[in-house]
Amino acid sequence: MKTGAEYRESLKDGRQVYLNGEMVSDPFCHPRLLHAAQWIADIYDRFYQPGPEAVNPLFTVPRSPDDLRRRLPDLEGADLTLNTTSQSLLALMTAAAAMADKHPRYVEAIHRYFEHIASNDLRVVECITDAKGDRSLAPSKQADPDSYLHVVQRRDDGVVIRGAKLHITGAPLAHEMVVMPTKQMKEGEEEYAIACAVPVNAPGVRIVATTYSPHEDDEADFPISTRFNMPDGFVIFDDVFVPNEKLFLDGEVQFSGNFAHALGLWERLGGTAVMADEADILVGFAALVAEANGLERISHVREKISEMIIYATLIRAGLEAALVHVGTTVDGMVYPSELYTNAAKFYGASEYNHMLRHLHDIAGGAVATAPSNRDFRLPELSGLLRKYMATKPDVDGAYRNQLMRAIRDFTADALGGWRFVTNLQSGGGLYAQRLVARKHYDLVAAKRAARQIAGLDD
Amino acid sequence: MKTGAEYRESLKDGRQVYLNGEMVSDPFCHPRLLHAAQWIADIYDRFYQPGPEAVNPLFTVPRSPDDLRRRLPDLEGADLTLNTTSQSLLALMTAAAAMADKHPRYVEAIHRYFEHIASNDLRVVECITDAKGDRSLAPSKQADPDSYLHVVQRRDDGVVIRGAKLHITGAPLAHEMVVMPTKQMKEGEEEYAIACAVPVNAPGVRIVATTYSPHEDDEADFPISTRFNMPDGFVIFDDVFVPNEKLFLDGEVQFSGNFAHALGLWERLGGTAVMADEADILVGFAALVAEANGLERISHVREKISEMIIYATLIRAGLEAALVHVGTTVDGMVYPSELYTNAAKFYGASEYNHMLRHLHDIAGGAVATAPSNRDFRLPELSGLLRKYMATKPDVDGAYRNQLMRAIRDFTADALGGWRFVTNLQSGGGLYAQRLVARKHYDLVAAKRAARQIAGLDD
Amino acid sequence: MKTGAEYRESLKDGRQVYLNGEMVSDPFCHPRLLHAAQWIADIYDRFYQPGPEAVNPLFTVPRSPDDLRRRLPDLEGADLTLNTTSQSLLALMTAAAAMADKHPRYVEAIHRYFEHIASNDLRVVECITDAKGDRSLAPSKQADPDSYLHVVQRRDDGVVIRGAKLHITGAPLAHEMVVMPTKQMKEGEEEYAIACAVPVNAPGVRIVATTYSPHEDDEADFPISTRFNMPDGFVIFDDVFVPNEKLFLDGEVQFSGNFAHALGLWERLGGTAVMADEADILVGFAALVAEANGLERISHVREKISEMIIYATLIRAGLEAALVHVGTTVDGMVYPSELYTNAAKFYGASEYNHMLRHLHDIAGGAVATAPSNRDFRLPELSGLLRKYMATKPDVDGAYRNQLMRAIRDFTADALGGWRFVTNLQSGGGLYAQRLVARKHYDLVAAKRAARQIAGLDD
Amino acid sequence: MKTGAEYRESLKDGRQVYLNGEMVSDPFCHPRLLHAAQWIADIYDRFYQPGPEAVNPLFTVPRSPDDLRRRLPDLEGADLTLNTTSQSLLALMTAAAAMADKHPRYVEAIHRYFEHIASNDLRVVECITDAKGDRSLAPSKQADPDSYLHVVQRRDDGVVIRGAKLHITGAPLAHEMVVMPTKQMKEGEEEYAIACAVPVNAPGVRIVATTYSPHEDDEADFPISTRFNMPDGFVIFDDVFVPNEKLFLDGEVQFSGNFAHALGLWERLGGTAVMADEADILVGFAALVAEANGLERISHVREKISEMIIYATLIRAGLEAALVHVGTTVDGMVYPSELYTNAAKFYGASEYNHMLRHLHDIAGGAVATAPSNRDFRLPELSGLLRKYMATKPDVDGAYRNQLMRAIRDFTADALGGWRFVTNLQSGGGLYAQRLVARKHYDLVAAKRAARQIAGLDD
Repeated sequence: MKTGAEYRESLKDGRQVYLNGEMVSDPFCHPRLLHAAQWIADIYDRFYQPGPEAVNPLFTVPRSPDDLRRRLPDLEGADLTLNTTSQSLLALMTAAAAMADKHPRYVEAIHRYFEHIASNDLRVVECITDAKGDRSLAPSKQADPDSYLHVVQRRDDGVVIRGAKLHITGAPLAHEMVVMPTKQMKEGEEEYAIACAVPVNAPGVRIVATTYSPHEDDEADFPISTRFNMPDGFVIFDDVFVPNEKLFLDGEVQFSGNFAHALGLWERLGGTAVMADEADILVGFAALVAEANGLERISHVREKISEMIIYATLIRAGLEAALVHVGTTVDGMVYPSELYTNAAKFYGASEYNHMLRHLHDIAGGAVATAPSNRDFRLPELSGLLRKYMATKPDVDGAYRNQLMRAIRDFTADALGGWRFVTNLQSGGGLYAQRLVARKHYDLVAAKRAARQIAGLDD
Repeated sequence: MKTGAEYRESLKDGRQVYLNGEMVSDPFCHPRLLHAAQWIADIYDRFYQPGPEAVNPLFTVPRSPDDLRRRLPDLEGADLTLNTTSQSLLALMTAAAAMADKHPRYVEAIHRYFEHIASNDLRVVECITDAKGDRSLAPSKQADPDSYLHVVQRRDDGVVIRGAKLHITGAPLAHEMVVMPTKQMKEGEEEYAIACAVPVNAPGVRIVATTYSPHEDDEADFPISTRFNMPDGFVIFDDVFVPNEKLFLDGEVQFSGNFAHALGLWERLGGTAVMADEADILVGFAALVAEANGLERISHVREKISEMIIYATLIRAGLEAALVHVGTTVDGMVYPSELYTNAAKFYGASEYNHMLRHLHDIAGGAVATAPSNRDFRLPELSGLLRKYMATKPDVDGAYRNQLMRAIRDFTADALGGWRFVTNLQSGGGLYAQRLVARKHYDLVAAKRAARQIAGLDD
Repeated sequence: MKTGAEYRESLKDGRQVYLNGEMVSDPFCHPRLLHAAQWIADIYDRFYQPGPEAVNPLFTVPRSPDDLRRRLPDLEGADLTLNTTSQSLLALMTAAAAMADKHPRYVEAIHRYFEHIASNDLRVVECITDAKGDRSLAPSKQADPDSYLHVVQRRDDGVVIRGAKLHITGAPLAHEMVVMPTKQMKEGEEEYAIACAVPVNAPGVRIVATTYSPHEDDEADFPISTRFNMPDGFVIFDDVFVPNEKLFLDGEVQFSGNFAHALGLWERLGGTAVMADEADILVGFAALVAEANGLERISHVREKISEMIIYATLIRAGLEAALVHVGTTVDGMVYPSELYTNAAKFYGASEYNHMLRHLHDIAGGAVATAPSNRDFRLPELSGLLRKYMATKPDVDGAYRNQLMRAIRDFTADALGGWRFVTNLQSGGGLYAQRLVARKHYDLVAAKRAARQIAGLDD
Repeated sequence: MKTGAEYRESLKDGRQVYLNGEMVSDPFCHPRLLHAAQWIADIYDRFYQPGPEAVNPLFTVPRSPDDLRRRLPDLEGADLTLNTTSQSLLALMTAAAAMADKHPRYVEAIHRYFEHIASNDLRVVECITDAKGDRSLAPSKQADPDSYLHVVQRRDDGVVIRGAKLHITGAPLAHEMVVMPTKQMKEGEEEYAIACAVPVNAPGVRIVATTYSPHEDDEADFPISTRFNMPDGFVIFDDVFVPNEKLFLDGEVQFSGNFAHALGLWERLGGTAVMADEADILVGFAALVAEANGLERISHVREKISEMIIYATLIRAGLEAALVHVGTTVDGMVYPSELYTNAAKFYGASEYNHMLRHLHDIAGGAVATAPSNRDFRLPELSGLLRKYMATKPDVDGAYRNQLMRAIRDFTADALGGWRFVTNLQSGGGLYAQRLVARKHYDLVAAKRAARQIAGLDD
């Protein structure tokens, strides 16, 4: 396994990463990538075990619902790239199970890749969303054939791919990318039915990073995004060669949808687990700020917090039910119920905005206007700000100010905006989540029950 | 155990039941009570086992989550009075567990009563909601002291009670009533801290029934309420004597809230289970009527059905989670998680109206205006009505008409109105459900998580 | 003008009306049509002015926003057939304005018909919704060509039409039917582009009535539906002859959509006005029942009532704005803004279910279980029921019971179900209302504003 | 009147403004205050008319609904300090009208102040929200008596005040502050019943600024917040002397609520007008991004845009209705309906989060991850980014990227977070808006209508 220091070294691999108009040579030296890189390094150190046999426990296959439960992402316990590594591997394993008897070559490649990642303790990101061009047209009908990533050249030893993958969280700081078709391809779209692994530093790969990391002069005021931020990557594959042994699908359109479905499931499971934790945090903030404002016994404030509690509880209920109704692949890997996972994910995403409204309604305008912590350090302001941000003898003004700044950071500034958008979009947007829930629901049984109670049975 | 015929005989016990301004001598002969009485009788016959040892399986104590799951109400498998019997007994057992070391006399009375009900195969209703008078005043502060049921006389062999209990579903057709305080009583309200059992035919008991059973000339058009209806009882205790051995609480105010809490839990568990089944039925109706209208591939119709699916799934997720996170009483009875049960109940009740809107939006105006089945029997109309209610070769007009009538019956007429109201009110209204959810949520942990992410830890 | 008595006589015209499997000879003698017929007769008497020049003021063309405001339906001031008469005439006038230069023949026929209705003081219903068959197919593609009403024979003196029109409120009790195409017809669908007037008693017309009128033995308990109910008609045109002078469109497909659009506008204006009045009534019920329950100072109850107030106010705001932004036809008729009318109608319909939830949440279970008024008349129950339905010295039990029965009647029984469905469906369902709002919104200006603020202007 | 240059000079008045731990000497030289200061200067130049008689047209009293309509804030036409100046003056005039006969001294002071501001073309901010301490305690019961601004010393020539006013948008860049009690004070709270005018540079005033202005290296990517941002001020009154002629209230508790009510009305009117404009902008963004993504004909996308259209239309309907139902003060000033203004404000604020969800759902993840415009300027990235951000021949990648960045800026980053919070909080939060709507609704009429339809009239 790698230490944090080894991880830092491993990034000096010639990768081409850009941010705000500049190429980044060392993310550990860039003020707006530093925190994310350090977060990953810290998690490396936390999991580190010496010896050649040691392996990150997340790099194993879940065999029981309890295994599954233990692998749910945990905000403090794992950085985002560790989660995407785990999700990518499980998604590949799920897709492999579906191809087991038809394409043993790919299954073998996937197993080998799993072993490679685990034994080298690498970080993997999942590259799924294409540029997509005109959303109303199929991949093969686009004005620009590169709108979906595809094979542009076929060689004896591998293939050359071209295209772009978007919204790849962690890409600038990971080692490997698992590339998958973003949806089921149809006959005639064989060149788009490509799944493979590509190192981040492969020739032809360029990553344009974006970040919501606070600026240096704001760090004191953004306690959450300083610690928990991860750049996204706009990953361009400008004629990248992929050797045969890294191919997991190459033209077999009938299996092309499996990857996206499998990844979607694991991604939504992870997303729902994070959402459940974050829903509890929202409840916590609401309760803390109600107390800090002296509102904790006001009826409408209590009702809002209770609604937030029910929100958090129902997301978690969906997770619990998904772990009760697990499925098992032919080779014994346990996976959660798609129906319950999706229902919870949809609900969490669709009501999130409403819960923010509750939190802001309770917290008040200071979420937007609480002064900088730096102002609290000025001698001529310090006492006055503490005095006027305090609300009662046991609520210190500096504490309450920091609470407001944290709520702003979490929900009403750059990180908050990113979370608002990605809560909705991760795992495919509300529309896709509705579709998946519908697909896995027993509609035949529901219709039967309705006919029966209506006396419409034959 | 009793047969349906024996049940019918058992109702000839001198009870005083009124409906629409008349006293009812035999419900099996009253056109608007007949269906409910027959439903109960049918369920008696279904469960009947001969022999003195036979006992209804619902009259046992759940010892495991699986036991609990098997006892969830099932629309077709049990009539409402069987469910209330089971819930009443479990609520008594839960309350008994809390008093075990303090009041063995009551515990013994409860166990004896359980045995009495089980061995005589009786039907019990739960009498919880008082008349309540002015909602802003405590029981002992009411202008009319009888606004909450209370002890008005104390004798050596028992007590005399006075008051009324409202919304007692099934009371006109049951054998026994379990009377409980509707909430925690305070010191000085000892006379209101009364729990006991009273036979329906006890002197002084009068029951004013209400029903949403269809009128005789409408039965053909109300396929659901003809089969599934149960009268409610407005039960008046006009100085009713209760012998000592039927007392389960008498003045010990500190235990007075346990009964309502225990009953609330079992009632909400049952209510949530029914709601989950009915949510599936709503989905089924939506899917059937979309198909019958030729709308099943229309995007906004599919989205609405998907939202209904997610609704049904989340209610069920709450149930599943409640059965994962069970508690156990000192004497080994397993009970569901209050947090998850309440969250699911609240969600189901609060979004129900929205799901109805979806169903009606898909079904169209024919829910309100589909002709009577009787019109379909007139020779001069039959062909024309079938022709114009049909929508395509494989959708018969009579079938589609019946589907519309069933949706009207279930959601947009007397039964529908009753369900709309009782979905909200059963188990205590939205406000009470918010409260209970809050009470059982780990708010301390949520606040800790928020402080931690905000960097506000000490 | 006609008196109520003359109206009663006028119904003896040989019409073929059916209800629940029987033909109805005189609606004034049928227990479930009597109330509606009497309502119409009463309104005739209220408006009656003697003399040949007298005319109902609603039978005039609005020339100013104030005229428009005066014509908004008023629950107490006009029965539903008077409203539909007015709406039908205005819709015809609006459609005529669009055809003024192209088809003077139809314009003349419409003007003549307006005069005929006004001078004979007749009641007209609007026949718009066809049977429609498979909703995913056009009129000319249906398996049954009669799924949309169409011309089946063409004679020198007129045409013969066949088909059915559904959800025709008031048809069993009106004199005349204005038949219109339910949507824009396309080339090749000329036979479906038919608008005309047909007397209710025309040979070949059969009307199958449905009603939510209470049964005789329930009348005491349904104070609202006893007074305000109107049967719907399923109107079958089984080869009905229409003379040339009653034709308002016959094959000119390009004008076929105008009728539905015009009717939609007037219908939605009327519907929104009624909805605004009924929203105020819902607020009133909520406030009365909160007071009757002693809850009027409870915070969450006040909040719910405030939300209902805002709901009622916003619907009315939409009406006000529609009357500010009126349009004017070439011949000087003033009509309301389609944008504001539709936005208000959509909002009112889509949030109605939510407001019901608030009302029921405040009122409590007695909405479903308040005893019959007949029980209050029994000597042995009267005192007890008044005692236990009372809540404080100034809230009489009989008053509170009647309040609960009225709320049940208005919102949670047959009338309530009908209103729930028709609030959604009248004027075309939520989907149609969204469409119309979109069509009349200035999307170009909105896009321009967005480009400008984004700095994307050229 | 002042030019922009004169405005710039006028800020060199010795004011004490802090931002992020530093005192700001010239906002025109501070990178994060520059844009706001320049915005104000530009608006000065736009309105500038030479001559001693010239006066900003917003500094006049509205005498008709049309006057009112002309004064509604306009995002492009006026900066925020011009709006607050106008609102402050109108609020003072409204409060003056209520005191006309009782306190002519204050009325005169207000009129003089109005004249002073108008003739010197100054910018005024409204100082209403106090620090407030424990929200559950009255001003006079706080642990810190300065939690609400109050008079601490009384001199012959004036008073000395102490306290803080929070969320004062524009304070760092304005000339004058109108200080008002934040709510109705009660007897015994005379020292808190203080309204007056204070120059920004008065001795003892310290302003701690906060801003969502982009950082210098982000300006290219935040097209909206670069142009439209205004710092907020945390204004500390550390024993500030106010001369008698600047006192508008001093101890007369019975009039203390008038100021907040009056300001609230004008603020909410302005806020609702801005919200209506911004709702149109949201619709515009949704339509543009749907087109840019090739989604404009997808059913669920169209439905979402239609809902956004209805949202924008209903807010505007509330404004229209508020201008129809105006009131008039004794001295002829016209003011909008409080009922309609508040209902629209509440609706706009409470559904705003939901509309954001729609916009983000349509736009997709690129709102969060669209690269910086600076990356588009790098030769090695420019072509690739344009290629992959493009979606079809007529949608340029750079245009679409800028659209995404603008949506991020407007809704999902620092400005977006500020707007999310202030939409809710301006004018007092959802709870306050519910209260005000309720207060101005005719509840008596609504109850009468309910009683009448229920047959409960006496």
